[in-house]
Amino acid sequence: MFGITPSSRLRPSPFFAATQSEGVCAFTSYNNMLMPTSFGHPEEEYWRIINGVSQWDVAVERQVQLLGPDAGRLAQILCARDLSHCKVGQGKYVPLCNHDGILINDPILLKLDDDRYWLSIADSNIWFWARAIAAERGLKVEVSEPDVSPLAVQGPKAEDVIASMFGDWVRTLKYFWFRETSIDGIPLVLARSGWSKQGGFELYLMDGSKATALWDKVREAGKPYGIGPGAPNACERIESGLISYGGDTDGTTNPFEVRLGKYIDLDVADDVVGIAALRRIHGEGVKRQQLGVQLDNTTPTELGFHWHGIYKGDQRVGDLTNCVWSYRLKHNIGFGLVASDCAPGDRVVVQKDGQAIGATLKTLPFI
Amino acid sequence: MFGITPSSRLRPSPFFAATQSEGVCAFTSYNNMLMPTSFGHPEEEYWRIINGVSQWDVAVERQVQLLGPDAGRLAQILCARDLSHCKVGQGKYVPLCNHDGILINDPILLKLDDDRYWLSIADSNIWFWARAIAAERGLKVEVSEPDVSPLAVQGPKAEDVIASMFGDWVRTLKYFWFRETSIDGIPLVLARSGWSKQGGFELYLMDGSKATALWDKVREAGKPYGIGPGAPNACERIESGLISYGGDTDGTTNPFEVRLGKYIDLDVADDVVGIAALRRIHGEGVKRQQLGVQLDNTTPTELGFHWHGIYKGDQRVGDLTNCVWSYRLKHNIGFGLVASDCAPGDRVVVQKDGQAIGATLKTLPFI
Repeated sequence: MFGITPSSRLRPSPFFAATQSEGVCAFTSYNNMLMPTSFGHPEEEYWRIINGVSQWDVAVERQVQLLGPDAGRLAQILCARDLSHCKVGQGKYVPLCNHDGILINDPILLKLDDDRYWLSIADSNIWFWARAIAAERGLKVEVSEPDVSPLAVQGPKAEDVIASMFGDWVRTLKYFWFRETSIDGIPLVLARSGWSKQGGFELYLMDGSKATALWDKVREAGKPYGIGPGAPNACERIESGLISYGGDTDGTTNPFEVRLGKYIDLDVADDVVGIAALRRIHGEGVKRQQLGVQLDNTTPTELGFHWHGIYKGDQRVGDLTNCVWSYRLKHNIGFGLVASDCAPGDRVVVQKDGQAIGATLKTLPFI
Repeated sequence: MFGITPSSRLRPSPFFAATQSEGVCAFTSYNNMLMPTSFGHPEEEYWRIINGVSQWDVAVERQVQLLGPDAGRLAQILCARDLSHCKVGQGKYVPLCNHDGILINDPILLKLDDDRYWLSIADSNIWFWARAIAAERGLKVEVSEPDVSPLAVQGPKAEDVIASMFGDWVRTLKYFWFRETSIDGIPLVLARSGWSKQGGFELYLMDGSKATALWDKVREAGKPYGIGPGAPNACERIESGLISYGGDTDGTTNPFEVRLGKYIDLDVADDVVGIAALRRIHGEGVKRQQLGVQLDNTTPTELGFHWHGIYKGDQRVGDLTNCVWSYRLKHNIGFGLVASDCAPGDRVVVQKDGQAIGATLKTLPFI
């Protein structure tokens, strides 16, 4: 593994000190910040998410705050998903597209108030994007990055941990809904969400100076349930079919290609960015689709830093956009962004670093 | 040093294989790509730039291409610097600002033709920005990321190396000017530029599949001059007073605060993004300025991942935004973003990780 050179272009999370105490040993960069990716025990960290409970520093999921009388209008202009029924306290998964209908991020939108929204973003600069659209359209809205840093608690025992801290009301919280609350003077937004399919919550810490205090409180409350440190887990998310913007997408990917069509409402108003292009793309049908890929080989074969070609005979039919050893399936699995005429069950060959590996296309999710 | 976990969100450069052969051991991320930062011999790599010649993989300096009848118009709308006299074959350093006059990047603009420009960008997403402005204003211009990856050749012997490869005409090339050319079928743009003050060139490779071939050609041509691998060098650039967008700036920095006022023309047309705000800021005067900081201590004291407070007595007067051991000055030096009433010669204290370090403010550049 290569080292990462310190630079103030790559900010640490407010949870940096806490994760150092836990033995963090590797990072990725995301939104020009550092996100822990490993505490040195990958398999243990995986099973903790599947069977127990895990706490993650996901402060890199930054918030793009829209504040002001036109906040709701800007939110709708940015998202090709109908937000007219979104309530205060409700979150929604909202693919963002540019004017050509190309995916530029896939945040969770949180409606904190009629004039205050957060876009809890994936890894691309939506501050620039939202500011450009707001300013060019003359909207009365301030776009900012507030002092908000999510800490995720994920796994089947997450609900017990969070209920022990905040009370049993959290058990009735619906998926993506949230409540502003606090614990021992630490202000936060508590949401049922997180980048796994094992269930859990995200604590959107609203005061970075209290990050270690919050981390330690979760750690303490989680002890009876065997909590430990973790991070967004490549194996779990691939098994579960969750996409990674920028990892599984390229500069021409539209939402219909990567199973996000159900979050697009084609009848939103004409001033929504990209809606004309999305209607056209939907009408014409997509040229690529996202399917699972299960490799034949049984030696762990990680993707590395770039996509690998998927072939039928001599014809390149697409790309393998991620790949990981599945501890549950005992196979290498990944996502393929492949031609529309491919189908689950098809036999293909992945060309990886000079090696030809047989594989079968699968429906997603794997599990 | 922490490890960096492979992910297809962080693309390797086309020169990745070549730099691996050279023994690259550390990276930073920049524009969602990996940039080599060390080949394991930091002092040797430094002196090679100061006294000899060094070759750098700076493919992360990506190009935002503006192509079409409105390309020139969009370039001027994005840049608060008068481009009306910019010739084909000429480059210009152009701070980009948002509608509030805040710096969002500081690229080199290359005018390749009347309808084709490149913005060779620092570390922020200007594709999104330029596309948003172009689409909202209905301009006839395509914004794309072409297959272009710069390789820098820097140091006092760079000119001899490049002249031995391309001919003596390169010796007459003016700073930031460039020419489209090729070598043994490898297409490139050859520019006199680079992120050091030691002189040199950048070869904008226009076919990523020929990256190793180009790297090896430079390596071979540089042998008589003692060429070796290197990377943008924190020590040299700080000594020389070159700024790093995103490292030395924050979300509220305007160009006048960081010595870029000379690249702003306040009399450009009113449709230039941010010009009204820049005129207002210029009229009111800035609240912060960038000065050098020389620390008293003589143990190498690197910055790490974040800024550190600069104090006069109890009052925080600004931040240390970078810090490095200067091999030539035999001191720790960095940049301060400090209050406007500070001046070179002032004594201050830097608070770094619980340590109070005496320091003196200095004019920039240091050397």
